[in-house]
Amino acid sequence: MAKLGFLGLGLMGYPMARNLLRAGHEVAVWSHTTDKARKLAAEEKGTFCATPKDVAAQADVVFLCVGDTAMAQEVILGADGVIQGARSGAVVVDCSTIAVAESRQIGAALKAKGVDFLDAPVTGSTPGAESGNLTFMIGGDEVVFNRIRPLLDPMGKKIYFCGGAGMGLQAKLTQNLILSNILMAFNEGMVLATKGGVDPTLMLEILDNSAAKSGLISYKAPFVFSRNFTTNFSVKWMFKDIGLMLESGEDLGVPLYLTGLTRQLFQTAIAAGHGEEDICSTIKVLEDLTGTTVAPKK
Amino acid sequence: MAKLGFLGLGLMGYPMARNLLRAGHEVAVWSHTTDKARKLAAEEKGTFCATPKDVAAQADVVFLCVGDTAMAQEVILGADGVIQGARSGAVVVDCSTIAVAESRQIGAALKAKGVDFLDAPVTGSTPGAESGNLTFMIGGDEVVFNRIRPLLDPMGKKIYFCGGAGMGLQAKLTQNLILSNILMAFNEGMVLATKGGVDPTLMLEILDNSAAKSGLISYKAPFVFSRNFTTNFSVKWMFKDIGLMLESGEDLGVPLYLTGLTRQLFQTAIAAGHGEEDICSTIKVLEDLTGTTVAPKK
Amino acid sequence: MAKLGFLGLGLMGYPMARNLLRAGHEVAVWSHTTDKARKLAAEEKGTFCATPKDVAAQADVVFLCVGDTAMAQEVILGADGVIQGARSGAVVVDCSTIAVAESRQIGAALKAKGVDFLDAPVTGSTPGAESGNLTFMIGGDEVVFNRIRPLLDPMGKKIYFCGGAGMGLQAKLTQNLILSNILMAFNEGMVLATKGGVDPTLMLEILDNSAAKSGLISYKAPFVFSRNFTTNFSVKWMFKDIGLMLESGEDLGVPLYLTGLTRQLFQTAIAAGHGEEDICSTIKVLEDLTGTTVAPKK
Amino acid sequence: MAKLGFLGLGLMGYPMARNLLRAGHEVAVWSHTTDKARKLAAEEKGTFCATPKDVAAQADVVFLCVGDTAMAQEVILGADGVIQGARSGAVVVDCSTIAVAESRQIGAALKAKGVDFLDAPVTGSTPGAESGNLTFMIGGDEVVFNRIRPLLDPMGKKIYFCGGAGMGLQAKLTQNLILSNILMAFNEGMVLATKGGVDPTLMLEILDNSAAKSGLISYKAPFVFSRNFTTNFSVKWMFKDIGLMLESGEDLGVPLYLTGLTRQLFQTAIAAGHGEEDICSTIKVLEDLTGTTVAPKK
Repeated sequence: MAKLGFLGLGLMGYPMARNLLRAGHEVAVWSHTTDKARKLAAEEKGTFCATPKDVAAQADVVFLCVGDTAMAQEVILGADGVIQGARSGAVVVDCSTIAVAESRQIGAALKAKGVDFLDAPVTGSTPGAESGNLTFMIGGDEVVFNRIRPLLDPMGKKIYFCGGAGMGLQAKLTQNLILSNILMAFNEGMVLATKGGVDPTLMLEILDNSAAKSGLISYKAPFVFSRNFTTNFSVKWMFKDIGLMLESGEDLGVPLYLTGLTRQLFQTAIAAGHGEEDICSTIKVLEDLTGTTVAPKK
Repeated sequence: MAKLGFLGLGLMGYPMARNLLRAGHEVAVWSHTTDKARKLAAEEKGTFCATPKDVAAQADVVFLCVGDTAMAQEVILGADGVIQGARSGAVVVDCSTIAVAESRQIGAALKAKGVDFLDAPVTGSTPGAESGNLTFMIGGDEVVFNRIRPLLDPMGKKIYFCGGAGMGLQAKLTQNLILSNILMAFNEGMVLATKGGVDPTLMLEILDNSAAKSGLISYKAPFVFSRNFTTNFSVKWMFKDIGLMLESGEDLGVPLYLTGLTRQLFQTAIAAGHGEEDICSTIKVLEDLTGTTVAPKK
Repeated sequence: MAKLGFLGLGLMGYPMARNLLRAGHEVAVWSHTTDKARKLAAEEKGTFCATPKDVAAQADVVFLCVGDTAMAQEVILGADGVIQGARSGAVVVDCSTIAVAESRQIGAALKAKGVDFLDAPVTGSTPGAESGNLTFMIGGDEVVFNRIRPLLDPMGKKIYFCGGAGMGLQAKLTQNLILSNILMAFNEGMVLATKGGVDPTLMLEILDNSAAKSGLISYKAPFVFSRNFTTNFSVKWMFKDIGLMLESGEDLGVPLYLTGLTRQLFQTAIAAGHGEEDICSTIKVLEDLTGTTVAPKK
Repeated sequence: MAKLGFLGLGLMGYPMARNLLRAGHEVAVWSHTTDKARKLAAEEKGTFCATPKDVAAQADVVFLCVGDTAMAQEVILGADGVIQGARSGAVVVDCSTIAVAESRQIGAALKAKGVDFLDAPVTGSTPGAESGNLTFMIGGDEVVFNRIRPLLDPMGKKIYFCGGAGMGLQAKLTQNLILSNILMAFNEGMVLATKGGVDPTLMLEILDNSAAKSGLISYKAPFVFSRNFTTNFSVKWMFKDIGLMLESGEDLGVPLYLTGLTRQLFQTAIAAGHGEEDICSTIKVLEDLTGTTVAPKK
């Protein structure tokens, strides 16, 4: 069993680290919220650490799952960061969704200290993290990837190696780009159909039997119909990711017309008070404006 | 077997009418291109007619599949139109994709003469029309629908009754609204990923195994990868349909932000010379601009 | 003095026709609202007519100012329309803002009867119409234009001959295209500045002393600051005109990205209940969403 | 005469610093390009410094004009930055256009060392900088502003105090927000009018005599007509500023629909190779797409 570290024990990181521990690995853990690290260490026989540096000092492979680019920079490159304690030959695997360019800079800074780095963002949200069914998209050195590959087994089922540094993030952001625009298309279409008198349940059935079928729509529509906006993936979180897509478009010189507009529509949903709700609550902006409720008639 | 009529023998109408004939119905046919009507009459024992009026004079149910709103108005309400020859109690089934409001006006004009009307747009394109596997979305009087329902069997497998007059069109336009926006999202995402170095084949595999999976993308991406832009559904045709969606949004007071932008992106593809090509050729605008080809590296 | 006709006595047409009468011309008048035509005839010694045809029968030059393309078609080409009564050699001057393509069709239909046609949309709104200070943008045959040119003097001060048929409308729509987008830019900028704490009065002063100075902004901002949304040019009216711009873009193959989006933002304002208010009330959508009032602090 | 410093001697900073020297002030200068600082020191009797820290050590008021947020952070807060050398009671006046939030952080960091900070972005481009005719928009402590106010005289004519920290930037970004959207509106309108056959010179005359009159359009249109795209304000520069506007919108929770789209249109112009050209070259994207040249016919 390997000597591992895990940094960031939020909604995703906590169950991911727990799965590593339950698979029999030694895992040193740190989290911004100290209590979570203490709890996980106590309940699952992990090793509590006070700083990312301390985690790095005792791990061959350090996993990371934090909220944004600035946190990843702080946790890896900061005064108490991984870079201060990591051993030459160690590997840092960043499961956070952060900016491509900054991720590459982090990797380069670690490389200068003899530490390898992989960007390894995940999808599957909390249920996937808990059941060990995440999807990993990974960028970096393929030899390094192959070395750490077996360690991912307790956490995910689908593992995609996407190419050099940043490619895992590129693939993840592309996926979310398509998702966020499909969601806006669904909102427009479903409000139009409902306002026009078509029953939304029937409309969904028609979509599900057409080329317009989409995993996201099939999954989210029933929540909308039953007015259940419990957060699975929040508007604010996707808004942040759309910002990363646009940064990537800027870096690569690719205009992203729909995505630029979709970002402002997410901004609208935030302004209307839906920032902490599930992304499917974005439909409420258009519903409220048009006096429509996308739900089957009683 | 019923006495039927079929007006408009284009890429869709010709095989639809042929399937009705092969199912054993008597079908009087007319087409703007007279030769097509003569050919079908000769080869499949249909009855050639010189005008829509003549067709209507000998049919209990008249099907229609023409290119746009103005043609439908002319064919039904014009000087030689269906309305001049139709018998009281006859039914007109309009399989064209036209404007919702104008479709209702046509229905009302026929009703005043004792003729019933259903809007019944289809999806499935030419292959679906040929194999009798179209999807019908139908609006109008449900009793009338149930009466003509069996006649659709030779043409389509999925038949959705969507509600009152115009609802079939509403459902069809909603479906295309979602499709056209998904296509633009695919273009942006795939060019971004490819420009960023991710192999498009891998990107598609990742999408196909995620919530971003979409029938359209799974179907169209391989054509893009193999640079096959043979027209299945043309840019100009979808551009026309997007115009109908926006008209419907205007009638119902529903703002359609993405769709409004998507229409201008289709306009861009037309300006760039791709109007007659398949809708997936819209990606070429972004490819050319960014010097990217969304195809696997050799 | 000439024998004239005037059709359509709305907010614009009434004062325009009155100015022609007061300049000493004989003017036969007709309006959809019969009372207006009777009133003008009575008060200003015009000749009341029951139909556009009757007006045409007694006029050498017929002016027209109606609300949309369908009305213009009806008034000119309908059963009681100008075309039924106009004498060969007469001129029809259409001051309405209608679709370019349909305007050309109207002109062609009249030409076939030996009647000349000019598209001659105006700007200046009701105050300009009342004071005889309208701006005319004119398309058609230049010889015809020169012949009727002096007749415009009582109605307008700036007269631009823009070229062949439809060019007057093209120029008018271009002007409104720019205006409507500037208005949206003003809304976004002013809400942003105000929300950020900059006094809107100061912001306007800065704009007025910069390259961002704009006639529209300088004129409209004080109304917004004083919360006076009295209709000068309504949201619905501009919404209609934006539709005409987009039709023109479609006809000419020109993508209009901002304009396509601006149309949906006007649709939003209509959905929010501001359709009948002045175009500057569009800012209220963004104000309400962000909890901002673009007005100087007391 | 005051003891001043000036950091950043680019197209704007060089003539600004020179004007301060010519007004008789002692000015210590530093620039990223050392040669420029040496040249200015030699020609205008300034004092060359090797680092921003050295400048700060000998100045009561330090001006700054650099290219982006990161540079401003480095020059002020970096290892050789102003903050290392500035005396308590000194004032830093930042004439750069940078992000509002980061500007406030810089100000707070300086304040903690007893140094005052004003954000003071300018407009007027190089000609304005050379002739001492810039416009200043200033945010920060009004007492501090009043103290340094006379020092601005050699550089600018219009000085606006906009409110607390960041308000100068807020006003500047608002102005550029409106400018960049007006430019896109001009592009769409002028290409539409020209493609439709209206002479662009006439169209400009009509605009200049209407509510659609705009300082930017009146100024830039003649350059477009004469195909002179010499850079006055580059596409890339405005693209950067639009990014700052959108960041400000995000911070304040204000959706900026047009601006989000306009940013992607600027991205398109960059992709098409116009990044280093003047902002009015953005029209070439639409011209090339539609086969139109917005120039008077010969």
